[in-house]
Amino acid sequence: MGSALAARLPDPVQWNRNRGVTLTAALSRATGPIVVCLFDHHSVHDVLDPVAADLAGRPVINLTTTTPAESRELAGWAAGHGIPFLDGAILAVPEMIGGPGSSIFYSGEQSVFDSQRDLLDRWGESVFLGASAGRAALFDMAMLTGMYTMFGGFLHGAAMLAAEGVPVTEFARRQVPFLAAMTGGLTDYATTVDNRDYAGAGQQSLRFTGTALAALLRATTEQGVPPGLLQPVHDLVARQIEAGHGDLGTARIFEELRSAR
Amino acid sequence: MGSALAARLPDPVQWNRNRGVTLTAALSRATGPIVVCLFDHHSVHDVLDPVAADLAGRPVINLTTTTPAESRELAGWAAGHGIPFLDGAILAVPEMIGGPGSSIFYSGEQSVFDSQRDLLDRWGESVFLGASAGRAALFDMAMLTGMYTMFGGFLHGAAMLAAEGVPVTEFARRQVPFLAAMTGGLTDYATTVDNRDYAGAGQQSLRFTGTALAALLRATTEQGVPPGLLQPVHDLVARQIEAGHGDLGTARIFEELRSAR
Repeated sequence: MGSALAARLPDPVQWNRNRGVTLTAALSRATGPIVVCLFDHHSVHDVLDPVAADLAGRPVINLTTTTPAESRELAGWAAGHGIPFLDGAILAVPEMIGGPGSSIFYSGEQSVFDSQRDLLDRWGESVFLGASAGRAALFDMAMLTGMYTMFGGFLHGAAMLAAEGVPVTEFARRQVPFLAAMTGGLTDYATTVDNRDYAGAGQQSLRFTGTALAALLRATTEQGVPPGLLQPVHDLVARQIEAGHGDLGTARIFEELRSAR
Repeated sequence: MGSALAARLPDPVQWNRNRGVTLTAALSRATGPIVVCLFDHHSVHDVLDPVAADLAGRPVINLTTTTPAESRELAGWAAGHGIPFLDGAILAVPEMIGGPGSSIFYSGEQSVFDSQRDLLDRWGESVFLGASAGRAALFDMAMLTGMYTMFGGFLHGAAMLAAEGVPVTEFARRQVPFLAAMTGGLTDYATTVDNRDYAGAGQQSLRFTGTALAALLRATTEQGVPPGLLQPVHDLVARQIEAGHGDLGTARIFEELRSAR
């Protein structure tokens, strides 16, 4: 990813810790912002801690994948050393950087975002999400959670059909447009949850969904597919029904998921 | 759903077991195929078993939600009574019947599908999936598995952000187009799985995905959201890495899901 980012910059000074040059030497040659894209949060501290004094007053843009709490910790560390800090989360694979469909979320110091905007836009759509440094990572991880559960559910469905010899590509031909169409329903779910309007008209009831999910679990077992990915969805719905909410809308499982904090 | 289906037919004889007329009386007035849309598999037998002799030679189209094994059982029962049988699975909510986006999958006797095609097309796109009576239900359930896991993952992500006061509608505005775009990647997964080409170029490795999922689980816990929906996806990937496949593509979790039969 680091190479893909550098390739879009006009005159980058690249530094890689597996090569010979010291980071201090590289920093002395560079004039622009410091873009950090490493393996994880720990690596960022390993690399930046020894040169913290050299970074004072120089904007640091961290594109390493970190959790929201880790991003906030880095922002605090940067503030302690007088380093203007922006945290970013890349919603793209390296091949997409600089092309259509590449988005990067940012949060932290807006002055860094604004002053570096021309540079950031070379990588894709730049979206500023606020001053809380963990916000970009949090949005990224919330969105990836939806993506990975969708991937898992797709392969689960494919395995059900594969048990009867149906090729996965034949399944994908029908499932991909169906899922794409069903993403539209998520917007309705969002409105329902924000308004806590689980008794509103036109919603599929928890009882109906519970019956459907029980049938899906039976079919999963019939096909010899382990039910692990589907069971927790079924169980969230079942708990809401047991709590007496069977006639309310299915989006109410949000109440099982939201933090009790 | 029964009312929505009947509303699209030119001259239906409707029968509902909660009203006074006997089914035998209703059958004597009807001339076309018998369309069955009841609560579950058990209800179908409750209603049809007593009139099996009256149904001999008359096409029965079952649109009740049943598992593949239940559909096959009904097909066997119908064959035993000389009843031409077609099983269907409706990929639509009642409001969609007869409009764009409504699809119904069918399997069973192709002669019933072909002879009743004009009627079936009144409800939406009619797709015949083969002579195995369970095939329509199986496709339906595989597709719904992907939909419900996507819904669950979306609400999980929404709960992560809600812990910091982000409205679900604000999340949906970014997540819906992202997920719709990511459904395109499922087609690549399908080709990879069909070719068992997990070492092919351009695939996100299980090791990379495992690191990402571990970060998502840490972030989930940080946000106070129960990890139940995400944990099984993480665990599938972790087991593949432990088995020594970390450098191969993430689609290889299919091998954890496919039947051992």
